[in-house]
Amino acid sequence: MNPTPIVVRKYGGTSVGSVERIRKVAGDVVRDYRNGLKQVVVVSAMGKTTDQLIGMARQITDRPSPRELDMLLTTGEQVSIALLAMAVHHLGCEAVSLTGSQCGIITDGSFSSARIQAINTKTIRKELEEGNIVIVAGFQGVTPDSQITTLGRGGSDTTATALAAALGVPCQIYTDVDGVFTADPNIVPEARLLPLISYEEMLEYAASGSKVLHPRCVEIANKFNVPLEVRSSFRDVPGTKVVKEDKLEKVAITGVTGDAKIGRIALTRVRDVPGVAAKISQALADAGICIRLIIQGINHDNSNDVSLIVAQDDVAKAGEILKDVMSQVGAAEVKVDPDVAKVSVIGSGVASTPGVAAHMFQALADEGINIDLISTSEVRIACIIRKDQLQAAVRAVHRKFDLGNLERKELNGV
Amino acid sequence: MNPTPIVVRKYGGTSVGSVERIRKVAGDVVRDYRNGLKQVVVVSAMGKTTDQLIGMARQITDRPSPRELDMLLTTGEQVSIALLAMAVHHLGCEAVSLTGSQCGIITDGSFSSARIQAINTKTIRKELEEGNIVIVAGFQGVTPDSQITTLGRGGSDTTATALAAALGVPCQIYTDVDGVFTADPNIVPEARLLPLISYEEMLEYAASGSKVLHPRCVEIANKFNVPLEVRSSFRDVPGTKVVKEDKLEKVAITGVTGDAKIGRIALTRVRDVPGVAAKISQALADAGICIRLIIQGINHDNSNDVSLIVAQDDVAKAGEILKDVMSQVGAAEVKVDPDVAKVSVIGSGVASTPGVAAHMFQALADEGINIDLISTSEVRIACIIRKDQLQAAVRAVHRKFDLGNLERKELNGV
Repeated sequence: MNPTPIVVRKYGGTSVGSVERIRKVAGDVVRDYRNGLKQVVVVSAMGKTTDQLIGMARQITDRPSPRELDMLLTTGEQVSIALLAMAVHHLGCEAVSLTGSQCGIITDGSFSSARIQAINTKTIRKELEEGNIVIVAGFQGVTPDSQITTLGRGGSDTTATALAAALGVPCQIYTDVDGVFTADPNIVPEARLLPLISYEEMLEYAASGSKVLHPRCVEIANKFNVPLEVRSSFRDVPGTKVVKEDKLEKVAITGVTGDAKIGRIALTRVRDVPGVAAKISQALADAGICIRLIIQGINHDNSNDVSLIVAQDDVAKAGEILKDVMSQVGAAEVKVDPDVAKVSVIGSGVASTPGVAAHMFQALADEGINIDLISTSEVRIACIIRKDQLQAAVRAVHRKFDLGNLERKELNGV
Repeated sequence: MNPTPIVVRKYGGTSVGSVERIRKVAGDVVRDYRNGLKQVVVVSAMGKTTDQLIGMARQITDRPSPRELDMLLTTGEQVSIALLAMAVHHLGCEAVSLTGSQCGIITDGSFSSARIQAINTKTIRKELEEGNIVIVAGFQGVTPDSQITTLGRGGSDTTATALAAALGVPCQIYTDVDGVFTADPNIVPEARLLPLISYEEMLEYAASGSKVLHPRCVEIANKFNVPLEVRSSFRDVPGTKVVKEDKLEKVAITGVTGDAKIGRIALTRVRDVPGVAAKISQALADAGICIRLIIQGINHDNSNDVSLIVAQDDVAKAGEILKDVMSQVGAAEVKVDPDVAKVSVIGSGVASTPGVAAHMFQALADEGINIDLISTSEVRIACIIRKDQLQAAVRAVHRKFDLGNLERKELNGV
């Protein structure tokens, strides 16, 4: 006899955005419980709660202390878990809610972006054994000396995959879309749902502007080999399963993504001496700015042109910082350009299939779209273009690769 | 050299009811900190937050589990402490917020009405020593096995006095009124603030419908000899100090209170056999109903008339329960009367001053107010009257005793 299967599920803010939505989630969870599935349910704060709490903090101070901001924001998920537990009780099932602290998610002390150091699953296992549906507050943890922290980037997705890894069970991410598509269906009407995708491809989707999953969550799932599934909390339809690449038929590319929320900083005539790149990246890291992409061109006259892509919200600040740095390391020009976007094709066969790059560039050329910068990896080709041409670019690439008719097979079963 | 004085302060929901109010409280706290006063600041949930959270729970289920309701409600105070800490930081002072769990308030596991079992002041003392203003979430605690609880009745007032007792320091309750008055100023315009009052008198005020302090908080203060002060968070004026009775000049009565939120259940012709009273009180206790007052009249023909006063919200339910019980113990009539009120005079000299009772009854008679029931204690005379005559009764008694001109002296300094 097999033991009762266990799964970790995560419901995001939209999925628990109202009392009605919480009732719906409770109904789904109870239905599956009665069909013999034990569940650890990770939930986010309801809808706009986090934004409202941040708004209150901003009314008080421009620079809230990260410790107190975490104290404030973790109340959002605590409200969700209590209400969801009540809704499950109301349907006649046993459930118990646990804060990040109570369910043993131990983090370091980096308030607002804490890293999980350990997960003590004792309480969760005990509650599951007692027949409870265990409802966990996402996005939060506790330091060994009882400080309340938030996980920052990736939030509740990270909680869910980390718990699934610790428990050795699969993870389902319920969200407001059906899964991962060949392109954003709002831009490309013929975009198709991808039933299967590799961790590596999913990482690139996450990093390329698809908001379905956070890269950190995918990294954890990949590292600990957690079976991961993205599916809709609104419609009972199959979603996207994220699996090991060797379980999948190789295809050249699986989809195209567009990311408008970026900006570019161009450094021209940077002196070609050791340590300059380190100085640039360190200065941005010190300000908490992540560099999404670095592209360094060919060396001319002992100087380089370097382009940096950062998040749109960071571009002005990054520009200021780099003007400072550049004035220290010698004559270089710093140009800030917030009006760029990135179009990427993603697929495990990008590097091994001849002609993929040429095909993509031709698709853009046919639309009269100029390519500003190019960056490639094993599973991705990204082009930086003008922001106002992004939607046309995504449509053109999707059409050129005939992604609307993509079929991909699983090799060995998942 | 004296060590820096420490005080525990509590600000209620109205006092932190908005971002502006939180800023005002932060200003007051920082001002006193800079004048050399170390502070532990206990706060309630902002304004109507608790009601809103209960409203959400009620949308989901009529009978939320007490554990989950506590999980839900404790977020209210957690929001307040985080925002107040930010507001203090904004004024350039160090502050740290602590949940009930973090500040070591250990309770039993009676969700929604937990009793404090122990207070571990280690964290609070450490934070005070490091120069922090310590901001504590009121109304909440944690069981030894990390379940989040609320203290129920008395809420944040109880947290504050219990912390003051544990730390051996005075306690200031900041509220939306100036202190304790000789009568409700909304009913009696000439009512005066009482600068000094004994614990025993304060207990009677609390039990007699004055909403200034909860009896539980006064009991703790009395038991642990905590100097207690009630004052306004809106106006910087002296409040009411609650002190040991032997420090006060004896006066016959200090004030008059009215309580309209009660109801009466009359049991007539109750058989005079042992165990009936126990049966009545146990049946109500089992339903979680507190009996405010029991009055048993003279025995006639081996039967008694018994009157019970309970909270208005409980009166219908108590009536149903007692009809059941009475049918078991023999023929008795049960009459439910929700339209009664209680007017009380309070003073440490009530029992020792001849004529106080007569004076009070005459005041009511002069107004044509019929007295339904009478109950007296060492420091109180309470009369049950018709609800629609309550305000007239309070005014008449206040005038008769000339309470507007009361002066009372402290004997030995406080």
